[in-house]
Amino acid sequence: MQPSINNQLTINQTPLMTYDQIFAKAQEAFLFYKNLPGKEKAAFLRKIADGLEAEKATIIPLASKESNLPEGRITGELGRTTGQIRMFAKLVEEGSWVEATIDHADPNRTPAPKPDIRRFLTPLGPVVVFGASNFPLAFSTAGGDTVSALAAGCPVIYKAHPAHPETSKLVAQVIHRAVTDSALPDGIFQHVEGGAKEGQALAVHPIAKAIAFTGSHYGGMALFKTASQRNEPIPVYAEMGSVNPIFTFEQKLSKDIAGSAKAFISSLTLGVGQFCTNPGLIFVPKSLQKEFAAAIKSEIEDIAAAPMLHEGIADAYYNALQYLQGREELEWVKVAAAKDLIKGHPALAKIKAKDWLSDDKFQQEVFGAFALMVVYEGEDDLLAIAEKLHGQLTITIWAEEEELSDKLFLINLLEEKCGRMLYKGVPTGVEVGYAMQHGGPYPSTSDSRSTSVGVYAIKRFARPIAFQDMPDILLPDALRESNPLGIWRTIDGEFIK
Amino acid sequence: MQPSINNQLTINQTPLMTYDQIFAKAQEAFLFYKNLPGKEKAAFLRKIADGLEAEKATIIPLASKESNLPEGRITGELGRTTGQIRMFAKLVEEGSWVEATIDHADPNRTPAPKPDIRRFLTPLGPVVVFGASNFPLAFSTAGGDTVSALAAGCPVIYKAHPAHPETSKLVAQVIHRAVTDSALPDGIFQHVEGGAKEGQALAVHPIAKAIAFTGSHYGGMALFKTASQRNEPIPVYAEMGSVNPIFTFEQKLSKDIAGSAKAFISSLTLGVGQFCTNPGLIFVPKSLQKEFAAAIKSEIEDIAAAPMLHEGIADAYYNALQYLQGREELEWVKVAAAKDLIKGHPALAKIKAKDWLSDDKFQQEVFGAFALMVVYEGEDDLLAIAEKLHGQLTITIWAEEEELSDKLFLINLLEEKCGRMLYKGVPTGVEVGYAMQHGGPYPSTSDSRSTSVGVYAIKRFARPIAFQDMPDILLPDALRESNPLGIWRTIDGEFIK
Repeated sequence: MQPSINNQLTINQTPLMTYDQIFAKAQEAFLFYKNLPGKEKAAFLRKIADGLEAEKATIIPLASKESNLPEGRITGELGRTTGQIRMFAKLVEEGSWVEATIDHADPNRTPAPKPDIRRFLTPLGPVVVFGASNFPLAFSTAGGDTVSALAAGCPVIYKAHPAHPETSKLVAQVIHRAVTDSALPDGIFQHVEGGAKEGQALAVHPIAKAIAFTGSHYGGMALFKTASQRNEPIPVYAEMGSVNPIFTFEQKLSKDIAGSAKAFISSLTLGVGQFCTNPGLIFVPKSLQKEFAAAIKSEIEDIAAAPMLHEGIADAYYNALQYLQGREELEWVKVAAAKDLIKGHPALAKIKAKDWLSDDKFQQEVFGAFALMVVYEGEDDLLAIAEKLHGQLTITIWAEEEELSDKLFLINLLEEKCGRMLYKGVPTGVEVGYAMQHGGPYPSTSDSRSTSVGVYAIKRFARPIAFQDMPDILLPDALRESNPLGIWRTIDGEFIK
Repeated sequence: MQPSINNQLTINQTPLMTYDQIFAKAQEAFLFYKNLPGKEKAAFLRKIADGLEAEKATIIPLASKESNLPEGRITGELGRTTGQIRMFAKLVEEGSWVEATIDHADPNRTPAPKPDIRRFLTPLGPVVVFGASNFPLAFSTAGGDTVSALAAGCPVIYKAHPAHPETSKLVAQVIHRAVTDSALPDGIFQHVEGGAKEGQALAVHPIAKAIAFTGSHYGGMALFKTASQRNEPIPVYAEMGSVNPIFTFEQKLSKDIAGSAKAFISSLTLGVGQFCTNPGLIFVPKSLQKEFAAAIKSEIEDIAAAPMLHEGIADAYYNALQYLQGREELEWVKVAAAKDLIKGHPALAKIKAKDWLSDDKFQQEVFGAFALMVVYEGEDDLLAIAEKLHGQLTITIWAEEEELSDKLFLINLLEEKCGRMLYKGVPTGVEVGYAMQHGGPYPSTSDSRSTSVGVYAIKRFARPIAFQDMPDILLPDALRESNPLGIWRTIDGEFIK
């Protein structure tokens, strides 16, 4: 099978490779790269971060042009991207992430002697990563999925997002240079272009051992279905977005209606609403709904529309609005201005809790700066909402501490529906750190056990392996008796460094 | 839908419940049980272990009768079962398994203040567990899957294996008593009987959040397919067995051919070969094959056949042998004696590496005391074998240290094909501990990232959740600033207790 892809960016190869050739190269690289010491992987990763900074003056305007996102935003995203690369570099340099666990032998145990068993995490193998349109850097070519897979020891076959092909090529070149400068095999990173057909071909290849994706529900689930129907099923980490509800309560909301409306609208419309965590749903008590709606209306009027990522996204946004405008349950607080070019004008509508509960359509994500304000009457409404709510990346609670004392059961229910729960604050702005969880129950992701942001993202690309009675010399460094890496390990049940 | 199941064992309920009622009860129990402190979960689990010991005199003969396994073996299995229950009790009592991770706020960070984020593992929700026929206790009603799910905080809906219904009921009663004595909700454990149809009905229920299974490839993959086609896909942890190859090398083997043959045959025929880890494949260098085959022949003659678990398993064993006897590539070292009653007589055949490589049929598991001895000529054969080999629970290396120095690449390849690698020793006898990995690449399991034995089995039933800027009083104990549980936590990137 000859893929119709431009693969010229992969260094030292013929311009067109078959999928078999691409994966054979990745597998060959894997057998070397999986054993590369953490310090060397860290040095390689840092070269990617340095390279991105060195190309800053070219990357920023290019990514801005291709994504319609302002240069200021792209500058911030580049910082996020290099920051997370260096975070993974530090993690693998330190080395404790492999969960080294040692149970010593006991030759005198009865009735049978106890063997020596040592376990740690080993990389899965070649990983296929799909870039996202809304983060041309941080969730794309050298983004969190690619870098956490590389940090784990997995080669990456990266399928560029067609919305920013030139940015992707440029970043791929930076990675290729880091590979070459580190004297690593080319197959560690391969850049592939194409659409859904090429994506499917990558996902079905028997050498692929995992898939990472950020994007639409449709795209994510298509990959999930493909992967689960393979002869050998493989994990799919698809982050498919959500509506990120904010639950507001009387006491908190009444304290500062104008400030709350401002915080909500600025989170909703940030980046033309094109974030996986933008709050497209807000639950408001009936007693304050009029006042809050008025405050929102005045805030939203001030928001200047901006171009969306690409035409397809703008079309989808306006199509979704058109559908909702045909639903009589909605009362419009702000109708979107007519589509001019590909600008996404913000919009907001109100709906009664009972109507919202009647149709799942009202909790489908509208990618862009649209939100639904759901007016609830009392605890019964809230419990029914919590029950009905789909899985979310985030749920935000706007309440004063004292008014939550009789709502602990509600909070308990809502925990089951999200990967991150915020108290006050807004869900946009996903911190990159140790404790971040960016991933939640279905349909926000295909695998709630994983995160695509933060250090734990590395665990998606590893599996445990145990060695029994293995001579010390044959063990990986992480498991040798003398602990040459100086890492934290669980030894006979105790945590020791 | 009215399931045709005998559910009388679930206490305080009508004899027949619908699936919806069963799962509603589990979900209600879950919302309470998920928040139960580790110490209380531990006390509950220990009551199950104590209860099993108290019923020992009844359980052992009953399980022995239903499984055809000798009482000595069942006695050992009961010890294994109570041992692993107490291991999980200790784990959740100590509490560090939840991976508590705290990133403190920094209100002075620029350009934006840094929020406080805290992450830990929370249970997935109700879990469906399928019992195994070959371990009526340790991998059944109160076995590793049930107990690791309960330890994680997940209610269990347990489908009994039809091969040992009475044992299952008796053990379920012990669990029900522990639930009652601990004043916990009934829905924490529900015992369901039935066949494949009932199993499928449990697997598709929307409230089910994970599935654990130990058994055949056919059964495991049927559940996997069902679960991946649900509206909300859920994880399936299916341990489907493997052939657990032993790779022998000249120097080691020549040192003690008789001893090696004895060790191999006793591992192969242990429990009539009815272990997931019994070695059904052994690779032998050509130079020693005649001598080794003779030694094996003399060992295997001494093995008395014993009844298999049930008629279906004995039939499958003899059908597989019949198929293989029709394959001209095989040379029989020991043809199985004719089937008498349901006894599984041991059998062993030889095949050349080149023939073995030509057909995947030769690496399919034959459940029972049959092994294939593959004669290899040199390194090329071994590399081709390693390449072709399916995923295994275990791979065993019989070599002297010094003869491995030029075989590191082969070992590297073989690591990709197993969850546990043994040096010398035999794969049967799976230790229950911290470092054990019982799970491997497909097709040995449906999810190589998991283990069904050892402490890490608990991680299968949990997912991360993060709390952002949550008041201390609303946080789970594991994440409170004062560390009231005294557990190990990652705080601002440092491991601290």
